Amino acid sequence: MEQIYNFSAGPAVLPQPVLKQVQEELLSYKGSGMSVMELSHRSEWFEEILAGAEVLLRELMGIPDNYKVLFLQGGASLQFTMVPLNLAHSKKAAFVNTGSWSQKAIQEAQKLTEAVVVASSEDQNFHYIPEILEVPKDASYLHITTNNTIEGTAFFDIPQSEIPLVADMSSNILSNDYRVEDFGLIYAGAQKNIGPAGLTIVIVREDLIGQVPDLPVMLDYAVQAKNHSLYNTPPTFAIYVAKLVLEWIKSEGGVTEMERRNREKAALLYTYLDQSKIF
Amino acid sequence: MEQIYNFSAGPAVLPQPVLKQVQEELLSYKGSGMSVMELSHRSEWFEEILAGAEVLLRELMGIPDNYKVLFLQGGASLQFTMVPLNLAHSKKAAFVNTGSWSQKAIQEAQKLTEAVVVASSEDQNFHYIPEILEVPKDASYLHITTNNTIEGTAFFDIPQSEIPLVADMSSNILSNDYRVEDFGLIYAGAQKNIGPAGLTIVIVREDLIGQVPDLPVMLDYAVQAKNHSLYNTPPTFAIYVAKLVLEWIKSEGGVTEMERRNREKAALLYTYLDQSKIF
Repeated sequence: MEQIYNFSAGPAVLPQPVLKQVQEELLSYKGSGMSVMELSHRSEWFEEILAGAEVLLRELMGIPDNYKVLFLQGGASLQFTMVPLNLAHSKKAAFVNTGSWSQKAIQEAQKLTEAVVVASSEDQNFHYIPEILEVPKDASYLHITTNNTIEGTAFFDIPQSEIPLVADMSSNILSNDYRVEDFGLIYAGAQKNIGPAGLTIVIVREDLIGQVPDLPVMLDYAVQAKNHSLYNTPPTFAIYVAKLVLEWIKSEGGVTEMERRNREKAALLYTYLDQSKIF
Repeated sequence: MEQIYNFSAGPAVLPQPVLKQVQEELLSYKGSGMSVMELSHRSEWFEEILAGAEVLLRELMGIPDNYKVLFLQGGASLQFTMVPLNLAHSKKAAFVNTGSWSQKAIQEAQKLTEAVVVASSEDQNFHYIPEILEVPKDASYLHITTNNTIEGTAFFDIPQSEIPLVADMSSNILSNDYRVEDFGLIYAGAQKNIGPAGLTIVIVREDLIGQVPDLPVMLDYAVQAKNHSLYNTPPTFAIYVAKLVLEWIKSEGGVTEMERRNREKAALLYTYLDQSKIF
């Protein structure tokens, strides 16, 4: 059977061994007689899957104990709202504008707080990562998009910041070896590097959450953290596939190896593009 | 292989023919060489799945043309926030309190608007459906929970209401033959009757949406409707499984047949409980 690699918007390639395991145990998970899709999220089977996914993510990314790991829904786009709702609490928020995803984050934040752009590469059509000269000290956080899929740029050096750094890492989480300690909050839609669409990962330093009373429960990091992502029924099947992908990444050599492979792929692609008469 | 039926909280049983088809085409959807989980949400394959699911749901439930069908994330719990955010717009909202799910809906609405309880069965531990004597004419909508899983009650007769009726139908959508025209908005987490967890169905009369400016995009029914549930990456795999379940329901005889089977199952269960010395 021919395998096709999809480089389009949204969902991306999943490892074949993962897909094969999903297929094998689709009708009966570990002899339970039930599909993973049918398991109660309150069952021991599922709690083991969820806890396992968290342990693997903590190990692969070196997530310190004072960070919470949340398995949520709604994609990065819902985080554009949840981050200012939870972290800005009537203070301004600072943004680096590196392209279309940054702009969406800024637009959504503006609905809830004052959003200040502290650096932008809009002047050259977002073809570079701009230098941050100054961040207002009274801003609650500084937001960056670590990888800009449409513009083809990425933050390899993470800016030093006195205020918490928030990163949309949707398209390069687990494929770039960032230090979690450099961030106050990291979020990522799962569909590029972790698993099926419909799952969002949030990694947040615990002192940053629980500051705002009476948020809608589903939009409150503190409620989700307190309930270990089980406040309501989570996307159980997507979390199961994500756990298998995390196991696969570990078995292949972890984030360092994923980073090496991506550089190799990029080098191949750029060599081709350099030689091409079309580009 | 023994099949186990899960009657616990959250996800429920899926039809075996659906699970078998998912298993068969897991590695290559319709000869695409890609798993459904890998398809771009902008691909023709996925757009066909999404459109197909909507057509089936419209047919099975008899959804009129002036209603939008949305495929969202976050479960009924996020609808507890989205409904008042989109529909209440600084007017009060009315609620029938029939148990724990109603109470959660009320609590979340109270964070955003004035929530008035117009009828409640709390006095008898929610063992009955209370009569609605009066609804304030200046309320923006009247909210009911059609089926109360924990309390074991259901609305078989839908209250007549001069203001739009909003229903949390999470646990009896497609298993009770309601008339969509009786409602202004219906929402349901998919995991009980439609598909895997991580998908939420919203059916809303189009004149009710787009009334509130500058809502967060992910929480705005109008944005989701305008983008045909593709504003950002939707839970593609869950929508695919839902489409297969809807096909299966149609092939088995539709909602009327599901309703008949459920009454049969309930009769069996209650006969057993009546004879039992434990209950």
